[in-house]
Amino acid sequence: MIPGRLPGVLRIIKLTIAYDGTAYAGWQRQTGIDTVQARLEAALAEIEGRAVTVHGAGRTDAGVHAWGQVASFKLEHGIDTHSLSLALNTKLPDDIRIREVRTMPASFHARFLARRKSYRYRINRTPVANPMERRFAWHVADALDLGAMREAGAVLMGQHDFAAFQTGATDATVRTTVRTVFDFRIDPEADDIVVIKVVGDGFLRYMVRTIVGTLVEVGLGRRSVGDMAEILTSRTRARAGQTAPPHGLFLMSVDYAGA
Amino acid sequence: MIPGRLPGVLRIIKLTIAYDGTAYAGWQRQTGIDTVQARLEAALAEIEGRAVTVHGAGRTDAGVHAWGQVASFKLEHGIDTHSLSLALNTKLPDDIRIREVRTMPASFHARFLARRKSYRYRINRTPVANPMERRFAWHVADALDLGAMREAGAVLMGQHDFAAFQTGATDATVRTTVRTVFDFRIDPEADDIVVIKVVGDGFLRYMVRTIVGTLVEVGLGRRSVGDMAEILTSRTRARAGQTAPPHGLFLMSVDYAGA
Repeated sequence: MIPGRLPGVLRIIKLTIAYDGTAYAGWQRQTGIDTVQARLEAALAEIEGRAVTVHGAGRTDAGVHAWGQVASFKLEHGIDTHSLSLALNTKLPDDIRIREVRTMPASFHARFLARRKSYRYRINRTPVANPMERRFAWHVADALDLGAMREAGAVLMGQHDFAAFQTGATDATVRTTVRTVFDFRIDPEADDIVVIKVVGDGFLRYMVRTIVGTLVEVGLGRRSVGDMAEILTSRTRARAGQTAPPHGLFLMSVDYAGA
Repeated sequence: MIPGRLPGVLRIIKLTIAYDGTAYAGWQRQTGIDTVQARLEAALAEIEGRAVTVHGAGRTDAGVHAWGQVASFKLEHGIDTHSLSLALNTKLPDDIRIREVRTMPASFHARFLARRKSYRYRINRTPVANPMERRFAWHVADALDLGAMREAGAVLMGQHDFAAFQTGATDATVRTTVRTVFDFRIDPEADDIVVIKVVGDGFLRYMVRTIVGTLVEVGLGRRSVGDMAEILTSRTRARAGQTAPPHGLFLMSVDYAGA
């Protein structure tokens, strides 16, 4: 028996994770590529003494950041949650931080039980880019009409088929492109930064970035406010705008029933 | 005659420069070391066709950032200021950005005529560090008493001999350690960030960072509020606290008479 280990007692652990996605090819483990999931699983395998598979709430793409990614996994090691947090933060690189560790009921699953996700997209709207923001905001040098962007974005609220804002297939297990947007807002964060916040029950692949790319075209006057509703009802990706770059996007939080 | 060049017409140019200091051994040119001044002079030499010496308002240390560093130099090339800005931003790496280019009277000098400088020091005060802030804020995990820090910092306002907050010699040309602090405040910037703002007519070497390091010791309860006045009047570096790390410090702006 390994000291500190209670063999056979499997717990479900929930992690809340923040990461600077700049150096990673996204969340999901892929052979031969550096990903956040792979880093986390390697750190957990050191503690558990065998391979651990982690389930992330959202598969963030290469270069996308997280403040509140959530992941779950089964652990046999008897380490307490506080020590597990410290051990993981010691083993992980400093661009990945474990913010919280909790023991959950056996039924918990970070991906399948996620009820709502909150994303933020940050735009640096100074004529010259702020060098401190170059990895954390999309630089748009020309003036943005935030009023037009807000009006255009309002049509996204509620339940819709968001097929027009999906690039490629989201996932083999995703059978519908209908999603619900619970909240949508555009607020200045500072003089040089504007933030687009979207909360929904789930998001298709590139959905937030394609919404942002299209809204920026509205903000620059290259599209009219009314285009947004037309694009949405068309369910045709070719009608929407460009996909905004990954480095402005942050997965802020994931909510679960009763949590 | 080189096209686009007006030989013999020397102009004084003022640059406002933002940089992420992470990758640089500070502002000042030093043989064999990568500095912001060296990068700027290399870019200017390409334009001017000969060596250009740049004078910076403040010699920021290794790892310190700037939003509003100011530099001046003589230019013979007839390029207009807008084109010069674009040319420099094309030649410079993306962690150094020219925010503004202006032609100044012949008497202008970025260093000798600087009248007041504004610095900010950012502290990340979440229990677990925000990975997005790891290059731009000092992580202090334990709770800070901001009220005590504000009270302690208030004694710095006005004209004082700040010798206690200077590490080593500031510069061979600096003959006095008396400086005036015009403004001092501590404000939250966001839930996880607190900012210490100091405005003064000039700063000794490591002065802001030693003030911040000492204030954090007050905030953590390791020193009393009254210590600050004692340290100041002692004029003895050994009485002050630790020097805060460079990566939380930003040179925000430099003011000149009539500008």
